[in-house]
Amino acid sequence: MTSNRTLQDIRIIGIEGIPEIRKGDDLSRILCEAADRQRTSLEEADIIVVTSKVVSLAEGKTVDLRSVEPSCFARELARQLDKDPRLVELILRETKSIVRMAQKHLITETKHGFVCANAGVDKSNIRGEHMVATLPDDPDLSARKIKDGINELRGVNVAVVITDTFGRPLRRGVTNIAIGVAGLPPILDLRGTADMYGYELRVTQIAVADELAGSAELVMGKTRRIPAVIIRGYRYKEDEKAMSKELNLPEEEDIFR
Amino acid sequence: MTSNRTLQDIRIIGIEGIPEIRKGDDLSRILCEAADRQRTSLEEADIIVVTSKVVSLAEGKTVDLRSVEPSCFARELARQLDKDPRLVELILRETKSIVRMAQKHLITETKHGFVCANAGVDKSNIRGEHMVATLPDDPDLSARKIKDGINELRGVNVAVVITDTFGRPLRRGVTNIAIGVAGLPPILDLRGTADMYGYELRVTQIAVADELAGSAELVMGKTRRIPAVIIRGYRYKEDEKAMSKELNLPEEEDIFR
Repeated sequence: MTSNRTLQDIRIIGIEGIPEIRKGDDLSRILCEAADRQRTSLEEADIIVVTSKVVSLAEGKTVDLRSVEPSCFARELARQLDKDPRLVELILRETKSIVRMAQKHLITETKHGFVCANAGVDKSNIRGEHMVATLPDDPDLSARKIKDGINELRGVNVAVVITDTFGRPLRRGVTNIAIGVAGLPPILDLRGTADMYGYELRVTQIAVADELAGSAELVMGKTRRIPAVIIRGYRYKEDEKAMSKELNLPEEEDIFR
Repeated sequence: MTSNRTLQDIRIIGIEGIPEIRKGDDLSRILCEAADRQRTSLEEADIIVVTSKVVSLAEGKTVDLRSVEPSCFARELARQLDKDPRLVELILRETKSIVRMAQKHLITETKHGFVCANAGVDKSNIRGEHMVATLPDDPDLSARKIKDGINELRGVNVAVVITDTFGRPLRRGVTNIAIGVAGLPPILDLRGTADMYGYELRVTQIAVADELAGSAELVMGKTRRIPAVIIRGYRYKEDEKAMSKELNLPEEEDIFR
């Protein structure tokens, strides 16, 4: 390996040793300290990618299913879908509209505008047999708080991406996508720029935040305890007004809905 | 930066200085030599990600639109879609079935089984005003040839992913995805494994080849001359029977088709 800095060279570094996250935990501090311990302290222009799960845990977005009273509608859907009625009740509370219900899948548009299975309500990687987590209420705000916290603690200006794992139409398998961003534009808009032969690129809005999220998943895994990574070396234009909802394709533009 | 090898740490290294690719070029040799020149010679277990465009060029999959005679059907579709009838004719030749036709988009299932706009027929990054490229006939075989070529030339065993840029339902913006693979499983199947609290993961097939393709795009860009990257440090299980068609969700399983 060389360290030729003129190369286009991105590193994706797992932040290990992050303890179990509890409600009220200061994620910025936890991330800075874990990065320090492994001698990869956060640097200017790093992109910090964090799973929505740890953000939900820190924000107390967990629910004990035993405390949930399902409605009649939730019970009926649960019967059709062969799911726990209390889980369906929680999903409906997070839902703006049901997009598809088939093959035991419940795909909804969440209150945030994401279209995903079970409105993002999820059981994995949470302590407690009856506990589930819902998505953060405002993942862009969550990302912003982590970004600002890191700036306060370490004086470095980073971008933050909060990820979740979504299935998708047309292709098998899930991928990590971005549900919250702070500090970088989620879409790189190349419309109007020229390719290498001067031909104008016509429809090229690249969902870089989703590509960053996917690349982070390669390090995070699902069964390793790596809920956050540093992406170092990706050149982006700072964007203080970045919003993840740019990634939501509105129904009227979506020829598959 | 440290080089602590116990870290989960992936590098994505652009292979620069790749010349303009012409029909018959030996991509394996070109990739090896370009990597050598920038002192990042290919290593055992590297993943080499290559855009379908340069593979198409090397395989001579380009067409001069002036040589194409559109059928009546192509002319009629072209009128409805406000596209060049010769381009529509080429798209139809690459197409197994039309999946959606709306808002001036023509989404088809290609002869390979990919669902994408214009059956992958594309104008960008090709020399010549009237030239377009079609996808490689068998991108897995193309990947295999590059893999075997690198092994012969340098004695290292790598994996190869061939990418294209696809739009997707539900989310705005395109991402790079894998249309050809050799040497690594395109999907990491975690069904039956346990999360960090011993809870069994139920539906977790991760489309790692698409995540690898997306991470490569972060370095490739669309306007830089970087049609190939090295992904170094991602741990995968060798798979000699890998096939990209595992990533195609069959119509009967796809609740959005």
